[in-house]
Amino acid sequence: MAAHPVSPLAPKTLPSLPAIAGARLATGHSGMRYKNRDDLLLIELAPGTKAAGLFTQSSMPGAPVEWDRKILGKPARGLVVNAGIANVFTGKAGLAAVKATAEGAAKALGAKANQIYLASTGVIGQLLPAEKIVAQMPKLKKALTGDGWAVAARAIMTTDTFPKLATATCKIDGKRVTINGIAKGSGMIAPDMATMLAFLVTDAKLPTDVLQALLKSANDQSFNCLTVDGDTSTSDTVLLFATGAASNKAPAKANDKALADFRRALTQVMAELAQLIAKDGEGAQKLVTVSVTGAKNDAAARVIARAIANSPLVKTAIAGADANWGRIVMAVGKSGEQANRDKLVVTIGGKAVTSKGMVRKDHDEAAATAHFKSDDVRIGVDVGVGKGKAVVWTCDLTHGYIDINADYRS
Amino acid sequence: MAAHPVSPLAPKTLPSLPAIAGARLATGHSGMRYKNRDDLLLIELAPGTKAAGLFTQSSMPGAPVEWDRKILGKPARGLVVNAGIANVFTGKAGLAAVKATAEGAAKALGAKANQIYLASTGVIGQLLPAEKIVAQMPKLKKALTGDGWAVAARAIMTTDTFPKLATATCKIDGKRVTINGIAKGSGMIAPDMATMLAFLVTDAKLPTDVLQALLKSANDQSFNCLTVDGDTSTSDTVLLFATGAASNKAPAKANDKALADFRRALTQVMAELAQLIAKDGEGAQKLVTVSVTGAKNDAAARVIARAIANSPLVKTAIAGADANWGRIVMAVGKSGEQANRDKLVVTIGGKAVTSKGMVRKDHDEAAATAHFKSDDVRIGVDVGVGKGKAVVWTCDLTHGYIDINADYRS
Repeated sequence: MAAHPVSPLAPKTLPSLPAIAGARLATGHSGMRYKNRDDLLLIELAPGTKAAGLFTQSSMPGAPVEWDRKILGKPARGLVVNAGIANVFTGKAGLAAVKATAEGAAKALGAKANQIYLASTGVIGQLLPAEKIVAQMPKLKKALTGDGWAVAARAIMTTDTFPKLATATCKIDGKRVTINGIAKGSGMIAPDMATMLAFLVTDAKLPTDVLQALLKSANDQSFNCLTVDGDTSTSDTVLLFATGAASNKAPAKANDKALADFRRALTQVMAELAQLIAKDGEGAQKLVTVSVTGAKNDAAARVIARAIANSPLVKTAIAGADANWGRIVMAVGKSGEQANRDKLVVTIGGKAVTSKGMVRKDHDEAAATAHFKSDDVRIGVDVGVGKGKAVVWTCDLTHGYIDINADYRS
Repeated sequence: MAAHPVSPLAPKTLPSLPAIAGARLATGHSGMRYKNRDDLLLIELAPGTKAAGLFTQSSMPGAPVEWDRKILGKPARGLVVNAGIANVFTGKAGLAAVKATAEGAAKALGAKANQIYLASTGVIGQLLPAEKIVAQMPKLKKALTGDGWAVAARAIMTTDTFPKLATATCKIDGKRVTINGIAKGSGMIAPDMATMLAFLVTDAKLPTDVLQALLKSANDQSFNCLTVDGDTSTSDTVLLFATGAASNKAPAKANDKALADFRRALTQVMAELAQLIAKDGEGAQKLVTVSVTGAKNDAAARVIARAIANSPLVKTAIAGADANWGRIVMAVGKSGEQANRDKLVVTIGGKAVTSKGMVRKDHDEAAATAHFKSDDVRIGVDVGVGKGKAVVWTCDLTHGYIDINADYRS
């Protein structure tokens, strides 16, 4: 497989993630697909770690997703992630492979198999050679360290061109807690839901049901605002682990006021990761933020925003720096959601382009074109019907997307 | 605007369309956008011609669509089509432009404005210079001829790389009738509905309501089976005119047995045009036929077929001749429709690739790759749930699509 050039939108520097008490990481090389790079991640979690998760809506979920769904709610002792083979559409052999992987990791960590969460990413339909993963476990166990976040983010990459990391600290009842996150994904990315792999670990002390509710809420404002190509993966997984090593008092409810800062910080970390994924969208040259207001409700606004963000004609116009706002109107029209043509206001880079069902007399084509030439394109649409609003992040559709996807397996 | 190379899927020869009694055609040059080619079509229809029509589902329809919807059901005396400017999202000025165009054509043909059907295709958001169209009417009126079908099909092209024509003869109650059709479209193509411009004329004698019912039924088996990029145009229009010059007795109902042959012939003409559009999909190198069986019902089957046909990952895999059937599984999974993973059968070129939730032991990767290298790719999926079925035609997603759409207006 040819290496692809690093996205021009990659951050100049990567954040340095602090160690989180109760979590240690190690990476290794399974040899199942990639050469000369790590493709395997083991995270050891302290006894009593709580787990929350969200998974793909696909009716063809991979075996690791099925495994995680089955054990979700149980305390976690570990996480194993591999890149290269997704273990999707692999029948009974795929289920046997996840069981063997979990058992191998459990043995190394002195835990039970149903305390080991799993995620796989890569080609669909190939059998996962679990024995290659299991064989690495003793070595990984010895290498575990709290400082392994940077290499961890690299080990889970597939067509990603840069690793994705984010961190934040916040307070719960005056006690400082930390949230670390890593993610991978650059194609087969669409909301509903997680649209990639993301793993978050916090030292906060939180009950499982509170953790799950917080994750769902933050996910709605982050990964579910993301689309690259409208293709939803069979392996989408977001896992949030809380080791409980921090000294905060555990709130009993997700809407506890004491959790306001944590909620903000969690959303921030997840939104940063989601935007990094959009910036690494296959072939991406530009980050595109689509904001819809004035829809019937928030759900309708999101449908409209996605219709714009997934439109090949809009995305190629952005790639070509052609401020062809008519295609934005087209995408609103095809969304199936209510919109008032004669009140529709399209903005490009914050400047109104349309009013009263036509282009404004003061529309500055040169300014709109200049904005489309930037690498941070902002499209706004008010559809003039109600108060619903939504934001979606995506990227442009370029020759790079074709290059990457016409030869992914070769 | 750069000219794009003719699709490799273009027919080697164009069919010669016979004259249809009661219809005469002429083309001309308005100068509104294109140079050195005709961009204007006038069809004169004999008094008493019946009209049927189907239009875009977009909530942002163009002014010509609004005009046609208003007069639909009335007898037709003429049709005016222009290429270059779509007259969409042009507010009150757009409505004034369609009125002026209809009046100009009516004057030339000695008809009323509300007997003139209109269609425009091209850039969204620019005002249509009706005066440039109207100025050509006297000249076009003089040039009218029954043999103008070939030039007519060329005059309505935009990014199309070849003209699209089809014809068939059939019998109603033993009397011979003819159906001619022309169409344009190669991007912004998705079902629901017409997804492009198509104009059909027959000499059959048919009541308006029968004509409308026949058109809707044939459309479901033709243009609604078509998708290029999932983007639905604001201007989609299919019009069917029946001049009544043939000597058949007019059946009172669309399900009259006497209409069986006409129904077959109409569907055949429209399906031929639809497949020609897929073959001219922007950047298309391959015609792709997606057949879904075993769905909950026909509607669910169509949703699944469209999910496959619109998936950028499936379409790029076909472009790269990578028989990556896992992406087909992914697309079924994301469709939102019921599918049984463990009964799913994917076929490539008619050969089964999967069974029991995984790849078959006898799957011949080399044969599948060879099939993906052909220009007539056939994908089948049985989702193992019920008896619903559907067929959708599309094309691959190539660098050509990006080339064409990143600089359409330039």
